[in-house]
Amino acid sequence: MISTTSTRCMPYYRATILVTLRPAILDVPGKTVEHALHSLGFETVRNVRIGKHITLELQATDVEHAQQQCHTMSQELLANPVIEDYAIATIEPITP
Amino acid sequence: MISTTSTRCMPYYRATILVTLRPAILDVPGKTVEHALHSLGFETVRNVRIGKHITLELQATDVEHAQQQCHTMSQELLANPVIEDYAIATIEPITP
Repeated sequence: MISTTSTRCMPYYRATILVTLRPAILDVPGKTVEHALHSLGFETVRNVRIGKHITLELQATDVEHAQQQCHTMSQELLANPVIEDYAIATIEPITP
Repeated sequence: MISTTSTRCMPYYRATILVTLRPAILDVPGKTVEHALHSLGFETVRNVRIGKHITLELQATDVEHAQQQCHTMSQELLANPVIEDYAIATIEPITP
């Protein structure tokens, strides 16, 4: 209960995390989209890669704390370290 | 054959397109990830939304032409206009 009370004072941050397949991994949905684009007449399109663009909000004491939590979340759940890379694109405070 | 010959001279551009569910649409995978993050101890996480981060390469006469093609591709295939928004995040020339 003490931790619940203390988090009430912490500001919220909005984070954007990009999760992409590693370059050596075949991107099957990307290849499918590439073929579809060729069929639609966009014949010069190549190297289509489809990753995840994750946005979330979280409470943290400061930007560094929010960034640290995003790294842990990415490593534990959001990205599969065997086949995916992740990058924290943005972290910004949410103005009330 | 004439068009194939003429595209050989055009430069390649790398584009990044973000496709996200419209705010009013329920993001079921996002909710699933949110609950999983709560279970892992990230209890202050909220509003998780998962979109698509698409990168591709295409030939165009200049940046405006590349941008125009990206808009058309997004409207015709990459985004579902009923439930999704799209944004062209970056377009930059690929140095040979």
